[in-house]
Parts: sequence; C-alpha cells; structure tokens
Amino acid sequence: MNENMDPIARIALQLSRLPGIGQKSAQRLAYHIAAMPENDVKELAAALWQSRKALHFCVRCGNYTQGELCSVCANEERQNGQLCVVRDARDVAAMERIRDFRGLYHVLGGTLSPMNGIGPEDIRIRELLSRLGAEDIQEVILATNPDIEGEATATYIARLIKPMGIKVTRIAHGVPVGSDLEYADEVTLAKAMEGRREL
Amino acid sequence: MNENMDPIARIALQLSRLPGIGQKSAQRLAYHIAAMPENDVKELAAALWQSRKALHFCVRCGNYTQGELCSVCANEERQNGQLCVVRDARDVAAMERIRDFRGLYHVLGGTLSPMNGIGPEDIRIRELLSRLGAEDIQEVILATNPDIEGEATATYIARLIKPMGIKVTRIAHGVPVGSDLEYADEVTLAKAMEGRREL
Repeated sequence: MNENMDPIARIALQLSRLPGIGQKSAQRLAYHIAAMPENDVKELAAALWQSRKALHFCVRCGNYTQGELCSVCANEERQNGQLCVVRDARDVAAMERIRDFRGLYHVLGGTLSPMNGIGPEDIRIRELLSRLGAEDIQEVILATNPDIEGEATATYIARLIKPMGIKVTRIAHGVPVGSDLEYADEVTLAKAMEGRREL
Repeated sequence: MNENMDPIARIALQLSRLPGIGQKSAQRLAYHIAAMPENDVKELAAALWQSRKALHFCVRCGNYTQGELCSVCANEERQNGQLCVVRDARDVAAMERIRDFRGLYHVLGGTLSPMNGIGPEDIRIRELLSRLGAEDIQEVILATNPDIEGEATATYIARLIKPMGIKVTRIAHGVPVGSDLEYADEVTLAKAMEGRREL
C-alpha cells in the first residue's frame, strides 16, 4: 500500500475493496471521511482494527469470539443435547435473533461446493464428528442454507451421522411467513406441501 | 465508544454512521471485515486514519492537501488569470477530471442557504475577495451547482465582484451530453434554448 498516494484516493481504494461498495460510493465515502472530525475517524479506524484483532474462532464451535469459547459454548445451560449446524457465524447471529433455540452450534465455515473445489476436508466436518464423539448430543439440526450447496452439505453430513445413532433433522422448507402463495416459486410450494402438518 | 462491546456490533455501529450504509449493510460489512485477513484490516484502518490525519485545507484555495498548498495552487503554470469558484473539494476533483481547465480554484466550503442558517460569512467569500485583491485574476468562473442554493451563491458573488472590474462568468446550463431531449426537464430545456450558440 503506497502511503504516499493521495489520501482521498487511498481511502477510496481501500473502501472499494469491500463488498457492495463500488468506485463511486468509495469516492463519496472518502470525501465524507475527509470532512469528518479527526476524532471520529480515529474511532472508526480503531473500531475496525481493534475489533478485528479481538476476534478469534471459538475453539469448540467455530463461531466468532473474543475469548477461547464463544458466549453460547461458554453458557452451560445451552448444553441441552441439541446441536445446530450452520454455514457461518452470520447464521449463528440469525438463529440467535429468534431467541428460540437453546442448544449449541457448529459453524462449518462453508458448504460443499465441488464446482469451487470445496470438499469435505475444507469445511469443519471432521471437527463436527469429533464433537459428536466427545459431547452429549442427541439431535443434530442441519441448518445450512436451502440452496443447492446447502442441501448437498446437509445430505452429506446426514449420511455420515445417521449410522452413529444420533437423530438428524433438517430445518423446514416452506412458504415464508407473511408472504403470498401466488408469488411462491414451485419448488418452495412443493416443499411446503410435502412438509404439511396436521393441525 | 464502548470498547467492550461485541467486536462485530462495534464495527457495524461505526460503519452505519457513514452515509448510504444502513444497518443491514453495516452488519454485512462487519462480518466481511471479521473474515478478512488481519493485515488487510490493519491496512484499511491505517488508510482511514493516516489519510484523514494527513489532510489539511490548502491555505490559498481551501482544497484538500497534504502540504500547505494544494497541487493546483503549487503549480505556477496554473496561474493563468482564471479562478474557478466551486462549493467543495469534490467539485475540484470533478473539474480536474475534464483536464481542460488550467486555472486556479477557490473552494467555498458550502453554499448560501438561509434556510439552514448559512450566510455569506459562513463560507469562504471573504477569502475569495482578498484573493482577488492580491492575485492577478482576470476571470472568475462561478461553478457552483445548478440548484437553487448554487444559483443564489453565484448571483451573490457575481454582484460583489462585478464592481471590481473583473470578468465574471457562470458555467453553462443545458441538456447533458448523451441524454435524451424527451426526458430533459422544462427548466433545463429552457436554459438550453436560452444559451443556444450559432454554429
């Protein structure tokens, strides 16, 4: 990184590397930052750097944490025998927002994707299996995304775990709450019918 | 700023204060930054903070600069008797992109806006007048935005300068190049007709 380049160009260049920020937005943000009070920029830069430096992966589940264990793994009340398998830390945050699930997580750190050369040894499947051997888990809930790669990953993991005699479930597919049947795609609607429950 | 808050929430909070970045984008960016290599985040934070710290206002024109004079003011070849008055440093950058104007700039740092309590003493009009007394300027080009505040500012400055016997011009209003007449608004079209030139 050339520290002698124009300061505004330097800010813009760095920001334009972030996802969803194009050249124009980066330029606009750079001018905004140039006009911000020095202390506010210091706080912004410190938040980025200190926060990133503070973040590690939980040694047990792979979620982000500042310590050795994440807040979920460190909470003994969360050891209720359920283990929710998700793709990344973002999905843990989404799950935690529903405030309904009281078990533990396992973050895979990706999904199987032969097209992109991502195989079982590239995501945290081995760690999952060793947790199942060491911890008291009765149910593994596969909560990978409902897309092709997420489905393939869930199917793959289910096949590995079932012989161990552990219950394996998959989150339900169906029509989103608050949506309109008319606009649901055929696959989702078919899954919703297939997964219908008696009232 | 609470340094003990969740690192990802802290990054998201800071980013959400930037213009055009909402809660959701800030969250998404925060997770992206969490997943970035530590060194890249260090570079990003350093670019923000070091660049902001390096920026000052050019003592002559008010543009951003790292030294005392900006690169335009420091370039003696740019003293061709023309002075282009713009609202802010962003507009200097826009003008420089056309690579056509070879004179100097004067950055007002705002436009007159009685509604927002911004009067002539709040923008760099006094500095402009003292430059006109001290420097060899034959033409002042008023290049404030073609909106109500920009027009009012241009008119106000023109009235002050004309009695000094200096030529005062305003950038042309008209239909943008590459646009479609059909979609031009009436005011722009009227201005384009008014400013027509013989071929």
